[in-house]
Amino acid sequence: MGTVQSLAEGAKLASRQVALLTTEQKNDLIYKIANALEENASMILAENRRDLDAAEQNGLRVAMIDRLRLTETRIHDMANGAREVAELPDPIGEVLEKRTLTSGVNLVKKRVPLGVIGIIFEARPNVTLDASVLCLKSGNATVLRGGKEAIYSNRAIVSVMRDVLSQNRVDPNAVCLVTDTSRDSANELMSLKGLIDVLIPRGGAGLIHSVVENARVPVIETGAGNCHLYIDREADLPCGVKVAVNAKCSRPSVCNAIETLLVHEDIAKEFLPVMQNALSEYNVELRGCPKTCEILSNITPATAEDYATEYNDYILTVRVVSSLKDAVDHINRFGTLHSEAIITKNLQTAETFMNTVDAAAVYVNASTRFTDGFEFGLGAEIGISTQKMHARGPMGLRELTSCKYYLYGSGQTRD
Amino acid sequence: MGTVQSLAEGAKLASRQVALLTTEQKNDLIYKIANALEENASMILAENRRDLDAAEQNGLRVAMIDRLRLTETRIHDMANGAREVAELPDPIGEVLEKRTLTSGVNLVKKRVPLGVIGIIFEARPNVTLDASVLCLKSGNATVLRGGKEAIYSNRAIVSVMRDVLSQNRVDPNAVCLVTDTSRDSANELMSLKGLIDVLIPRGGAGLIHSVVENARVPVIETGAGNCHLYIDREADLPCGVKVAVNAKCSRPSVCNAIETLLVHEDIAKEFLPVMQNALSEYNVELRGCPKTCEILSNITPATAEDYATEYNDYILTVRVVSSLKDAVDHINRFGTLHSEAIITKNLQTAETFMNTVDAAAVYVNASTRFTDGFEFGLGAEIGISTQKMHARGPMGLRELTSCKYYLYGSGQTRD
Repeated sequence: MGTVQSLAEGAKLASRQVALLTTEQKNDLIYKIANALEENASMILAENRRDLDAAEQNGLRVAMIDRLRLTETRIHDMANGAREVAELPDPIGEVLEKRTLTSGVNLVKKRVPLGVIGIIFEARPNVTLDASVLCLKSGNATVLRGGKEAIYSNRAIVSVMRDVLSQNRVDPNAVCLVTDTSRDSANELMSLKGLIDVLIPRGGAGLIHSVVENARVPVIETGAGNCHLYIDREADLPCGVKVAVNAKCSRPSVCNAIETLLVHEDIAKEFLPVMQNALSEYNVELRGCPKTCEILSNITPATAEDYATEYNDYILTVRVVSSLKDAVDHINRFGTLHSEAIITKNLQTAETFMNTVDAAAVYVNASTRFTDGFEFGLGAEIGISTQKMHARGPMGLRELTSCKYYLYGSGQTRD
Repeated sequence: MGTVQSLAEGAKLASRQVALLTTEQKNDLIYKIANALEENASMILAENRRDLDAAEQNGLRVAMIDRLRLTETRIHDMANGAREVAELPDPIGEVLEKRTLTSGVNLVKKRVPLGVIGIIFEARPNVTLDASVLCLKSGNATVLRGGKEAIYSNRAIVSVMRDVLSQNRVDPNAVCLVTDTSRDSANELMSLKGLIDVLIPRGGAGLIHSVVENARVPVIETGAGNCHLYIDREADLPCGVKVAVNAKCSRPSVCNAIETLLVHEDIAKEFLPVMQNALSEYNVELRGCPKTCEILSNITPATAEDYATEYNDYILTVRVVSSLKDAVDHINRFGTLHSEAIITKNLQTAETFMNTVDAAAVYVNASTRFTDGFEFGLGAEIGISTQKMHARGPMGLRELTSCKYYLYGSGQTRD
């Protein structure tokens, strides 16, 4: 029996207790966790320092080290994030349906926790707290498997949480951390059918691909975002420029930023130079299709690979298309079912685009950057699902639940 | 490129057309399919005869041959089943949520089709029609991979459906049949990430296990049912006997029949002999725990393997337990998350049982045999999910859908 399996067995047992906690009990635990986190800030920062030292020694990229870094302020923000989750409505116990069957049996369909949620993530220690608090609020136990870069920080945060659980007579295995950060431990976690009810990978395309390929347990695929903005021939061009700049440049490293701009040929000559000028302020590198390269000078020709690439950087592919259908076909071929937008004044065109493009979120005249649990009003987010099963788009508390049929009879049997 | 992949690519294209059909168009197609099925009954029966001949030559079990057999009446029933699906409300387009975000963007969350649904099933040609009609009504395309025993019947039924689609200018690839019935074709279907949005296995434990182990696409696990009935110390004993007989004997071959009876020790001596007598009318073989064997004479001792076995036959394991907790622990150890029941007059005990037993459907004082899409009022059923993600319990039209966020802006960008 592997170490991860015994952790998950512990989490399974704990999940049965956590599922029965009242809203008040869960909120009380979350507030206590938030307070304990702040009280233990210096310990957590000291452990985080060990991760940072190792990261610097190992020559990690600056962006990676930044994600890893905790500060007093950051810990305070994490604690407040947890308190906000406590304030959210509890999804558990909600009656989804209620009816009397022809047999006279009374059926009540209720929202229940999923059970044990596995989370595999990379070097962001704040995920440790965010994810386990969301799981706790939704009545689930969590098995966390973070990256080796954040192991000391993760251990510190999890130990604070487990102490609070124990002190309040809740099985601390409701929050488990896999401390073995080898590839083997990740593979073992993915194989624990019957113990892990849902596995959520959070991280880069490589991690997500590996989980989808190897998991034997149900997975919710998250994160990959090869998003597009299509400027229709009936677009308001200043609106198109403004949205393009925002969708590309406001935070290029995130999944809801755009990677490719599609432009209708009728307005390409007018639109592209203005857009190039606006994007040049952010030093965005443009890679263009042949028609784009004819209109704009000094840009790199785009390859087929470019169309399929999520740059997460100040790079934008530009393609001129001859129709709405071409734009939709391009997106349905290269998109990752995340967020897609059209700029147009024609509402009929907008509806056709939105109905035929396959994505979690489809926009007209707005930036794809809004695809986010907080922006969508879910109050929280554990990731953005890019699959169609179970959850689609930003996942909040409700997406961490299942349902259960309760049937009340008085001796009914079936013919 | 494999054959199955090219089929699935065709289905993916067709799915985009099917997703946009109106309710009226879909219902019209389904009625025409039902009529065409009856009009082509003699052709279908002749093809079915070829399957039956092969089955007899290959010495298939009688039960298997019975499942394979079509008759005029059976075809008429299948057609009427399709007409009933046409009468059901269309889940597609339902507005699930609607709000204006703080940015002023209007959000509408709508129900949409999943896309392409793969179905792997065994020797029941009626599944071919049932499943594709349910998928069509919910706006999905289907790739069917039935067993080799039913290949001629399946080809005949699918050709009738595809003709109706073509005649009505709908891409016939909305219903695709994998005619290669080798294991390779099943494996290829399971690997088609990006083409198959959800894969539903329908059949025995071996098939389902193989799909869960090997699939790279999202799967909804169905069917396995190791169900229990617990007779509490405060049970109405005649009610317990009646429900036990119904849950075991009304149709032992199906997944919602019980396989194990758990009896509280306080009433075991009184209950077990009466129950044994009632079950003897159906020649049910009992396999008992040591305490059961002390109370009842002439019964086989149960092994640990018995507790984990879904007999689908007139065999019942009996175990005496010393508490509600023991009963729940037994179920949570050996159950398959399908249907579990308690007989008790104590509503508090019932609630505890129902809240702590992990199953899609939990019953008090009623037979587990009610777990069924029709009985639950869903109007149809494509299978019974025994996983917690996406769908749980009987799956009707709504369980064949996903959702999509539509966002209407007027140039909004994110800070």
